[in-house]
Order: sequence, then structure tokens, then C-alpha cells
Amino acid sequence: MTQYDPRELRNAFGTFMTGVTVVTAKTADGTPIGFTANSFSSVSLDPPLVLVCLANSSSNYQAFTSADGFAVNILSEAQKHVSNTFARPVEDRFATVDWRDGPNGGPVIDGVSAWFDCSMFKTVEAGDHIILIGKVEGFEANAAPGLGYARGAYVTPAAELAALEPHHDMIVSVLVQLDGKVLLVEAKDGLVLPEGRVGKDGVSQTLQAVVSSTGMTAEPGFIYSVYEDSDRKSQHITFQCAAEDGQPTLGAFTDLSDENLQRVTDPATRTMLHRFREESRIGNFGIYYGNQQSGHVRTITAGR
Amino acid sequence: MTQYDPRELRNAFGTFMTGVTVVTAKTADGTPIGFTANSFSSVSLDPPLVLVCLANSSSNYQAFTSADGFAVNILSEAQKHVSNTFARPVEDRFATVDWRDGPNGGPVIDGVSAWFDCSMFKTVEAGDHIILIGKVEGFEANAAPGLGYARGAYVTPAAELAALEPHHDMIVSVLVQLDGKVLLVEAKDGLVLPEGRVGKDGVSQTLQAVVSSTGMTAEPGFIYSVYEDSDRKSQHITFQCAAEDGQPTLGAFTDLSDENLQRVTDPATRTMLHRFREESRIGNFGIYYGNQQSGHVRTITAGR
Repeated sequence: MTQYDPRELRNAFGTFMTGVTVVTAKTADGTPIGFTANSFSSVSLDPPLVLVCLANSSSNYQAFTSADGFAVNILSEAQKHVSNTFARPVEDRFATVDWRDGPNGGPVIDGVSAWFDCSMFKTVEAGDHIILIGKVEGFEANAAPGLGYARGAYVTPAAELAALEPHHDMIVSVLVQLDGKVLLVEAKDGLVLPEGRVGKDGVSQTLQAVVSSTGMTAEPGFIYSVYEDSDRKSQHITFQCAAEDGQPTLGAFTDLSDENLQRVTDPATRTMLHRFREESRIGNFGIYYGNQQSGHVRTITAGR
Repeated sequence: MTQYDPRELRNAFGTFMTGVTVVTAKTADGTPIGFTANSFSSVSLDPPLVLVCLANSSSNYQAFTSADGFAVNILSEAQKHVSNTFARPVEDRFATVDWRDGPNGGPVIDGVSAWFDCSMFKTVEAGDHIILIGKVEGFEANAAPGLGYARGAYVTPAAELAALEPHHDMIVSVLVQLDGKVLLVEAKDGLVLPEGRVGKDGVSQTLQAVVSSTGMTAEPGFIYSVYEDSDRKSQHITFQCAAEDGQPTLGAFTDLSDENLQRVTDPATRTMLHRFREESRIGNFGIYYGNQQSGHVRTITAGR
């Protein structure tokens, strides 16, 4: 390209939605350093690799490129303040958060959706940035919805929830997913999602009660589906819901096989679950269903 | 890391929200090929670089790694079907979409939020994937909200909108942003956002009318802020709104300087705009405000 306007290019880059990370390391004298970045990508499962991009002009450039490794903290939706703190000049950024050393020595921050503590695998010079590729030496993840970023502003499920008021008969259900399986409950007329009718306590409270009833540690995320339930004269809203490992006390995690989907007798729910099955194939490490494409769980031994 | 469960690692990777892209190229005989990927990142402004990760096991591996370049199509929220088509085995994926050759010969798809047509800059082997780094030879972007992906399911502003019904007095306003400036309208008591009271036509229609009144080509995206407007006894919902280049017929794009923010007399709006100013600093190529960090618009000449 011979002529272009960097302002327009920057805006075009911004059309790609991202999460928000804080990338951290320790300087030679042990001081924790970190910066907010959204140029993160998972790269490889085996060996486990991730990447982030760092500006050549960054004051952290020397420290990060000479470090033994770095940690990537995937911020949760409650951590806008952490994102802001690590994005602007602040005297002691780490004084404002709770953090500890990860297994590889990288600072990991409390309350994140996930963290990856990495050894340095490779660095790649790429224009006005350098790509840091890290080998994951340890990681942790939980059900907290991630903070999103789109076209220069944060995106969170919390904003959706705040806008919803129980205006007439409203039913909320949760799509609790774990490793590609969905929590379905045996009802008298087939399999259904865990659900509840919104009472005077409001949408948030009802959602929490529905999640609690399943016995899982899970947090409602973005709205997944909305439809008019004409049989029950209600508006029906389904929320995405990530779960931590565990055993439900209500229902069971169910493969979305054709056979199981036939046991979902409500047409709207069945259509939605079909759609969910399709969508889970997306991405680098999409969750696959069915015999031909089933993922297999491995515990492998990998030398550093 | 000596022991880990790839299933858990994959779930942890999934906590990072992403957009959805379709990466395309032409084979030696001119056949268009493409695949759905969310492992995209912008890398550099000067030279303009982007990256995507491709699995070593991909049937497209040979074709992409030997291609002169590739195009990245950032899908818009209306293009879930495109994402699905390019993520599963389909006889002729390109028969299902409208597309054309980009300036570098990469297939660019109609209706996307943005596309980047790239020459191959560098490839980097990284575990079970290869990183393709492309030099942007041409690009285009518009105001269509991007399709998002979080923890195995799509995220779109459309789902939010569908869930909103005008249950009582409701005012919607739009945060129309262009290059870090926000469209503000001179009212008798100071600067305000373009807004409208939701009538019987519903939220969507009212939003469209508010956008139209500004004379801009813009599309409402995610909900940005929700609050009770006690003065007017209304629920007030503000939507993010990306705009294409143009001149507003109502109001003016305004720097969020301290001086200008003082002219926003409604406290809730002023707080929100303060927050927006903070957030725009995030990311690789965040939009900066103020004298110390102002971005400058350049048109540069870069040889290939």
C-alpha cells in the first residue's frame, strides 16, 4: 500500500472486538511492571503458546524483551479500573491491585477471568511492534465473564442486565456450558434449560437463583437468545453462562447430539441449541461435537 | 509446564473475547479458499501489519503458507452464517457469499465490518500453528457492528436490542464517535447527546430515528450506559455508535477536553463522557486525547 491514512487504519483495526489483558513481568531487580493490551491471541495447544504485541516505543520495551517470561491476565468485566490503571501513567500501578507471583514468576492479578504465566518462547520483530510469544508454564481460569472492547469502548454483559427491567411476564433461562456440553434438566415433556420466572426481585436476582438451583459455580454472561414464548405469553431471554468444573445437583451436562436434541421438545429451545452447536465450532480451538470431530481429553507430559 | 489438560487450556483461551474473521487467499490455480478464525491481531501501524494463526493440521496449510498474501475479513454481526459456512466442511464456501478480488488479489467478502488485503510479510512457526503476518496493501471499514465471540458463542448487540421493550418512560441516546471525538448537540442548558424518547414504535425504530436526525451514517452497537434519569422520571440507555466519515447536520464532533466536558451540564452524561475518555486509551492503537498524547493524522508514502 503506497498511500494510507493511519487514522483510518487504526479505526479499521478497532472493528475487531477483543478482550482486555494486562501483561506483566518482573524487571531484573524484581520490580513488577505491566501494561494494558488487547493485541493478544492464543496460538498453540501443544506446546501451549500465546502471543501479545508490544510497541517498540513502549517504556517497557527493554524490560519485556529481556525478561525470562511474562504473564497475561485476562481481565474480567469488573476490572475496568485495572484496565484503566495499567493504560495510563500511574506512579505504582501494582499498589492498586492484589497480585502474586505465578508459577513462572510473572505477576498474576486477583479477580481476572484467566491468567497465563509464560516463559519466553520467541520474539518476532514486526514493524513498529514486537510480538512476544510465550510458552504457558501455568494457567488458571474461572467463570467470571471477560471484559470486552469494541471500537474504543468497553463491552460488558453487565450493561445489558442493567437495561432489563421486568416489564411484563418474563422468563429467564441459562445456557450453562462446560466443555461443549450444556446443562439440561429432565422435565415431564422432555429436556429443558434451567429457568425461572422473573418476580419482583428483578432480572439479576432471578438469574442468580436459577444458577444457584443447579448447584454449579457459574456466572451469567451475554444475552444469547430472546424470543416470545407464545404458549406461556412471556418474553423468554436466555443468558450465556460459563461454569467451573463441578457436578450439577439439578440436571446433567448433555452432549448436543441429534438424538439428545430430539428430546428437547420446545421448538424455540431446540432451534437455539442447534445454533449453539454450530457456533461452538468457530475459532482456533473450537469445541467440537459428534463422533467424527470429538475432542479428546489428554493429560500429557511435556518437557520444557 | 509439565502436566496440563488441553481441555482446560482450551477453555482458558476461550475467556478472551474476540471478533470473528474469515481469512482468504487464492490457490496457485486461482481458486478462492478461506477459513473462519478468531486468532487475529493487529500488529503495527507503520508499516501496517496484521497477523492470524493457522493450524499446521489445516487442509489449507500448504496453500496459505505458499500464497503471495491473504485477506482478513472482519465479519459483521449479521454474518453468523458466513462464519458458520467457513468453519465447517462445505463443498463451495464462496458460492454462498458475494465477494470480489481485493487490491492485492485476496478475496474480500461483501457486508463485512472491515477487510484487510495483505501481502505476505513473514511466517512464524509456533507449536501446532503457524503465524501468518501480512502487510496491509489495502483496507476498508464501515460502521457495521462486528460479530463477537466469547466462550464458545457469538456475542452481538442485536441480542441486547431484542431484549429491550419500552416498558415505561425510556430515553435512548447515542454516543456517536469518530476519531475519538463525540457528537454533541448544543441545547439551551449545555451540550447533550443526540437522544429520543421511545414511542410506540419501539426501541430499534427510535434509535434509528435518532441516528438519522444527526445526518451521519452510523449504526448502534452495544449498550454503553444505563441510568435512571430522576429529573425526567425515565430510564436512560446510551448506545455505542460507530460512524463513517462525514459531516453531521445536527451538533458537532467535539473533543472531550476538560473545558468541553464542563459544558455538559447533565451530571450523568458528564460522568459517562469522562469514563469514555478514559476507556479510549486502551489497546495497541488506542485513541488518545489531550495535548500530551494527541494522535496526529498523517498521510505517508510507503514503498512496498
